[in-house]
Amino acid sequence: MEEVIERGSDVLLYLDERRKYLVKAEGRVFHTHRGSIDLSSLVGKPYGTVVRSSLKVPFVALKPTIYDYICKLSRKTQVLYFKDIALIVLRLGIGPGARVVEGGTGSGALASALAFFVKPTGRVYSYEVREDLLEVARANLARAGVLDYVELKHADLSKGIEEDGVDAVVLDLATPWEVVPHARRALKGGGGFASFSPVINQVERTVAALRAEGFVDVEAVECLTRGFKVEEGATRPHSFMVAHTGYLVFARKALRE
Amino acid sequence: MEEVIERGSDVLLYLDERRKYLVKAEGRVFHTHRGSIDLSSLVGKPYGTVVRSSLKVPFVALKPTIYDYICKLSRKTQVLYFKDIALIVLRLGIGPGARVVEGGTGSGALASALAFFVKPTGRVYSYEVREDLLEVARANLARAGVLDYVELKHADLSKGIEEDGVDAVVLDLATPWEVVPHARRALKGGGGFASFSPVINQVERTVAALRAEGFVDVEAVECLTRGFKVEEGATRPHSFMVAHTGYLVFARKALRE
Amino acid sequence: MEEVIERGSDVLLYLDERRKYLVKAEGRVFHTHRGSIDLSSLVGKPYGTVVRSSLKVPFVALKPTIYDYICKLSRKTQVLYFKDIALIVLRLGIGPGARVVEGGTGSGALASALAFFVKPTGRVYSYEVREDLLEVARANLARAGVLDYVELKHADLSKGIEEDGVDAVVLDLATPWEVVPHARRALKGGGGFASFSPVINQVERTVAALRAEGFVDVEAVECLTRGFKVEEGATRPHSFMVAHTGYLVFARKALRE
Amino acid sequence: MEEVIERGSDVLLYLDERRKYLVKAEGRVFHTHRGSIDLSSLVGKPYGTVVRSSLKVPFVALKPTIYDYICKLSRKTQVLYFKDIALIVLRLGIGPGARVVEGGTGSGALASALAFFVKPTGRVYSYEVREDLLEVARANLARAGVLDYVELKHADLSKGIEEDGVDAVVLDLATPWEVVPHARRALKGGGGFASFSPVINQVERTVAALRAEGFVDVEAVECLTRGFKVEEGATRPHSFMVAHTGYLVFARKALRE
Repeated sequence: MEEVIERGSDVLLYLDERRKYLVKAEGRVFHTHRGSIDLSSLVGKPYGTVVRSSLKVPFVALKPTIYDYICKLSRKTQVLYFKDIALIVLRLGIGPGARVVEGGTGSGALASALAFFVKPTGRVYSYEVREDLLEVARANLARAGVLDYVELKHADLSKGIEEDGVDAVVLDLATPWEVVPHARRALKGGGGFASFSPVINQVERTVAALRAEGFVDVEAVECLTRGFKVEEGATRPHSFMVAHTGYLVFARKALRE
Repeated sequence: MEEVIERGSDVLLYLDERRKYLVKAEGRVFHTHRGSIDLSSLVGKPYGTVVRSSLKVPFVALKPTIYDYICKLSRKTQVLYFKDIALIVLRLGIGPGARVVEGGTGSGALASALAFFVKPTGRVYSYEVREDLLEVARANLARAGVLDYVELKHADLSKGIEEDGVDAVVLDLATPWEVVPHARRALKGGGGFASFSPVINQVERTVAALRAEGFVDVEAVECLTRGFKVEEGATRPHSFMVAHTGYLVFARKALRE
Repeated sequence: MEEVIERGSDVLLYLDERRKYLVKAEGRVFHTHRGSIDLSSLVGKPYGTVVRSSLKVPFVALKPTIYDYICKLSRKTQVLYFKDIALIVLRLGIGPGARVVEGGTGSGALASALAFFVKPTGRVYSYEVREDLLEVARANLARAGVLDYVELKHADLSKGIEEDGVDAVVLDLATPWEVVPHARRALKGGGGFASFSPVINQVERTVAALRAEGFVDVEAVECLTRGFKVEEGATRPHSFMVAHTGYLVFARKALRE
Repeated sequence: MEEVIERGSDVLLYLDERRKYLVKAEGRVFHTHRGSIDLSSLVGKPYGTVVRSSLKVPFVALKPTIYDYICKLSRKTQVLYFKDIALIVLRLGIGPGARVVEGGTGSGALASALAFFVKPTGRVYSYEVREDLLEVARANLARAGVLDYVELKHADLSKGIEEDGVDAVVLDLATPWEVVPHARRALKGGGGFASFSPVINQVERTVAALRAEGFVDVEAVECLTRGFKVEEGATRPHSFMVAHTGYLVFARKALRE
């Protein structure tokens, strides 16, 4: 009944909340400061299995979720970014079958998440001007198992969008206001727009551009998550938190009268 | 090319950020303090169309997204709840094809969102002890177009879960710790658990139960969103915000050694 | 041993967390929806006494603190403002004997707090361009018992500051950057500067002006307070909170080389 | 006109926002990674003077404020604690002349701040069970120039309070609920109570004890400060922040009927 780990498939080795390792189940020995694990020994075991390292320390062999891929593919900045991706996906209603324009691709973290939710019938059109990043993203999307649902495009979103009638446009780039007129043309009536910006001044310019183009339901928010240390009788927030990743701007396209 | 409003379908009439009305495109006159709109006049127009009320005030006829349904179906408390649903969906990786146990159903807001993301091949098993609420939820799920993907069950999650090998268990009920052992049995190895609790003491008890049952990757967080008033040269957060909806607890099932 | 309420002195009648009334102990009947209280009956009782209204509802007769005066004198906006005043006072080290320039006076809430902490040997020079507000502030300062430590000035801070060698300059006005050069001249070496601004764009301009004038230790912060509903086994933050009052900018004057 | 640095007095050498050094103006060479400074060269210069290190790097010679002493005396934990001290001081109205019971003394950071605000006629009674800490606190209070206003007591607050008719009781210790009955006896009618607790469970017990003892105006809050990176056109919150220091509980004593 349980799903079994196949040779060559990804496994998330869980040690504790801070130490999770994305590995492949194949003939290699994985070394940690808590002992080593022969990765080929994972093959044939069900996901969720506890494996002991050479030092008898327990690791749990988990099947990576899209959340794990986002965290692992995307380095420091994007780990923080998870909450923002979650809001974008639900706020714009990006679900199975949706067609979404996205950019800049970067390392592909946002594209991975969008592709995960639009599959199997939807599609993500991901724009990036740097060719080297497109190759990084291609590898990351392949690893996350969603490359088939993404069209990687070596092009500049501020110069134009080739698709039309799309359900959503999602931006994570330095000058979103330059893309707003193109987003307008590419979106279907009522289609959703989202933009992520680390500095408030970009938010001002993006919102001004959206209003000028007649978008409605324009909303700017920031999202904070705070973790807790939970112990019976001694529960408290963690002492430090990420104070800021960026601001989100949402809007929807109204047709011209 | 644009999608056209069909007779009898839902339309979200957008006036401004605070006033959005979920209506049906059919022969009825909709009255607002900003004038009236003949709803049958919407039929045949593309989504995104601006319609003028009898007082010449512009409304935009939007196609409701799952976000809109969550906000509209679920009254005050759940509107706030949107950010929490978003985190649950992405943190657990609930996408197309997933099988999810959920409860209590309540008015069906959370079930609607989960169903939207697991469709068309996945399934949500939603438990509720109050029969009257099940009827409310059924109507709401039907309206949101996702009833086909939800199995509404008149049963008590704290007494047991009938499904097994499920991808995720998501709880929004008063005693989640009572459900933890059942969740363990129902989940496949590595499967995800999420629980929403308004008070911190429930978090303590739930986390203790998860640890006792051998769950790993146990994490408690709260999520806050803050809106901004964006005007060129005068940008600032809104003066008031929702300070609290609830805490989220996440975990994953490890198999017993 | 206990301090006794004298005829004509202020009393804070406490009903519950949201209902506190600032009254005078003298021959008047005070009416509330929870019954009436003959205020002259308070005279001669010690502070902290429980008095019963005509409906037998208990009120506590408290001696107003500077916190109460700030909350009561200053209407809605300033109540929220309490946390910001607290940070200013401690961050700048405004204690007994300090000489502080402040403006705009407004209703006198900030001036009241500053005066409370600099007394008896210090002094607050409070600038305001609107004569009508100066009269409001004078009454409020008198009521809070700190008028003797404040010099109310009908003048525009952006035109200049008459004092020199002051310990601190504290601003709550629309164009703080215009006051920065004057603040520089008025402050003693190492003296402290604080400015309160509701919008972020004002912060940008103020910080730029401070840097241009050679201030050091320039710091911009926002302060949030969140209240809790504490019940055994059911503790949680309140559902709503003040999301924003304003940003604070702090700096210190370096002498020119 | 400017105040001049005297031999042996404290100077805060400011390099940048993160690097501020508390030194004494006397015959010693101070070494930093940005060059060395002969501290005796500071004597006779006005506070606010820019001094150049041997590497020509500018440092500003500031007069330490009570804020600086709190930050410097109190190590990591207490630096964070500054915002909480500020709220306590203003919320309880602890100003010139106030008599305050405080404990545990610890390194004396809170006592330093309280003493600064009650001087010259008020008094702080600071309790500590650990004799070694009392010696640390004595040195810190002396350095901050407020030792004359503090009575350090080698005693356990949970066993009783010797003073009576005090204006305020302020606690930063592990079992504040044990002190509540003693605080009640020590406080004058309407006197203020504040307690700082890192974990929420302590808040629950303290609030329960306060209600049982008939305190009123019981309020639990947490205070967060978030710093900003301010650059023209690129303003944003810092990426990380202190997520938690502790919760504050406030209350006032009502006399028994």
